[in-house]
Amino acid sequence: MTSELSKKFQDPSRGVYFIGTTPPKSTFEEPKLEEVSQKLLERLEHIEVDGLIVYDIQDETSRIDKPRPFPFMETHDPRAWSKRLSQASGKPVITYKSVSSRSSEEFSNWLSEAWQDYNIRDLVLVGAPSSDGDIKLPLPQAYKTLEASAHPFNLGGVTIAERHAKKGDEHQRLMKKTEAGCEFFISQAVYNPQATADLISQYARACKEQEQTPKRIILTFTPCGSAKTLEFMEWLGISVPDATKHRILDSEAPLAESIKICRNALEQIIETALPLGVPLGLNIESLTNRKEEIDASIQLYKLLRATLDLKLAEQAIQ
Amino acid sequence: MTSELSKKFQDPSRGVYFIGTTPPKSTFEEPKLEEVSQKLLERLEHIEVDGLIVYDIQDETSRIDKPRPFPFMETHDPRAWSKRLSQASGKPVITYKSVSSRSSEEFSNWLSEAWQDYNIRDLVLVGAPSSDGDIKLPLPQAYKTLEASAHPFNLGGVTIAERHAKKGDEHQRLMKKTEAGCEFFISQAVYNPQATADLISQYARACKEQEQTPKRIILTFTPCGSAKTLEFMEWLGISVPDATKHRILDSEAPLAESIKICRNALEQIIETALPLGVPLGLNIESLTNRKEEIDASIQLYKLLRATLDLKLAEQAIQ
Repeated sequence: MTSELSKKFQDPSRGVYFIGTTPPKSTFEEPKLEEVSQKLLERLEHIEVDGLIVYDIQDETSRIDKPRPFPFMETHDPRAWSKRLSQASGKPVITYKSVSSRSSEEFSNWLSEAWQDYNIRDLVLVGAPSSDGDIKLPLPQAYKTLEASAHPFNLGGVTIAERHAKKGDEHQRLMKKTEAGCEFFISQAVYNPQATADLISQYARACKEQEQTPKRIILTFTPCGSAKTLEFMEWLGISVPDATKHRILDSEAPLAESIKICRNALEQIIETALPLGVPLGLNIESLTNRKEEIDASIQLYKLLRATLDLKLAEQAIQ
Repeated sequence: MTSELSKKFQDPSRGVYFIGTTPPKSTFEEPKLEEVSQKLLERLEHIEVDGLIVYDIQDETSRIDKPRPFPFMETHDPRAWSKRLSQASGKPVITYKSVSSRSSEEFSNWLSEAWQDYNIRDLVLVGAPSSDGDIKLPLPQAYKTLEASAHPFNLGGVTIAERHAKKGDEHQRLMKKTEAGCEFFISQAVYNPQATADLISQYARACKEQEQTPKRIILTFTPCGSAKTLEFMEWLGISVPDATKHRILDSEAPLAESIKICRNALEQIIETALPLGVPLGLNIESLTNRKEEIDASIQLYKLLRATLDLKLAEQAIQ
């Protein structure tokens, strides 16, 4: 059986909608794991999703000098967490995999296990957080290892508009990742819609020049309800313009303000992407375990999904 | 197992979304029945629905003198059609039942078969099309027969805003039907939003006076692409204001014009219903088998669903 998401991704008249989540701490054991997954599934009962996204959290201290606002903790194996969530929800799960710390052979074994033992079909490979650390397997080689494996994963890549804002070449990375087999891209959390719109615009032009159909770009959004969460976003490398920062910090209802900001950002990106034929998707996550931010992420999901669905429906009628 | 729709209906923060459909002609046999159901399911692949609605079409010639623009034909048993669609789609199906032509005992047997043999859980009872014909079982007695049966159906009723526009008492019928066990209502096709808004407004006031929570009202919408479909709508008793009629008939793109009309109508009704706490749902159907009207009904579904989802999401954040 191949990926059931792949078919949905190829229909540009529809959006695709995900909730992003991090595996629990590696110290959690069975009854606690079950409790965490049940809580997540209960929240999903109130919304309709096409699937879930499970991250592979790395210790990114090599990337940045500042201390991490929320301490890094080793997590439960993302493959096992994906399998559990997929079985419990009946929905497909896109699984992230950081590739740099292991050899090509080890990665090849990981892929076989992921396909056979964990039933993973939708996969996003992530490179090293910086070029400073000890990189055993660079991302381009990981793509080759994957290509050589027998398993037809539905492959996705990460895209970071902030890199585009700095270097102006992120659209070329998307083209290269497409050559390497990527069928979709997932963005970092969007708080700087102009950077994302610029990237999408240049990506669409590059696709046109090379007579390619643009791949789907799944935009990540996350609510932000406090100065500490904002600090964490900046630590993660998410670009937050000054005016946006002040709107959140000065608001009496920062969470609701951040939801307004996200909606406006999505509308701006939609207006760029849809006329250019770049299909979109959404991935909503909460960066913290705070209940109010998790609840807000479900509200944000509903709002942004309906916003994109409405634009797509309007476009189909014109 | 009881109705899985019932739980969704009780959550006012969500909309509920259906596609309405008529069973095929009674003369169709197995390979043709399978073909018809497959075609319907293929269209559903592009949208997400909470379920389907299957009508029980009656010969309504007793109600009106004019000839029926599309001739009446006996259909396949709605129960059998519901079961087939539910099994093929994995979705719940609300089944209509016209009760007037059979005795209470016959109806009681019909109910037992519906529950046991056809796995029907969600049911809408329909009275006689007019008070002129031979009525063996009036609707109020049918409700009593149902109450006496052992099966806990999720029961719904029909609501007709056009009656409210004429007599001003449709909200009282909703209150009575609620007393008789109705948990939700499905409207006739809406082309006169003012009549529906007036009904909902009076219904909400009546509920408030009697300290009841308003039941969910599922609004039916249908695209209209030709003079003949318009004539059929009027034959069915759907009120179409003059300006609306002319907008459709004079348009170069009548289907797209009717979709715009429906969207505007829904927005007007939402603005009345949501602040009053009346939960809404949508039921989209095509009144004809014309391909362009069926395709338009899927576009209409996407547009109206996103419109209601967006208003609900906005309301949750304020």
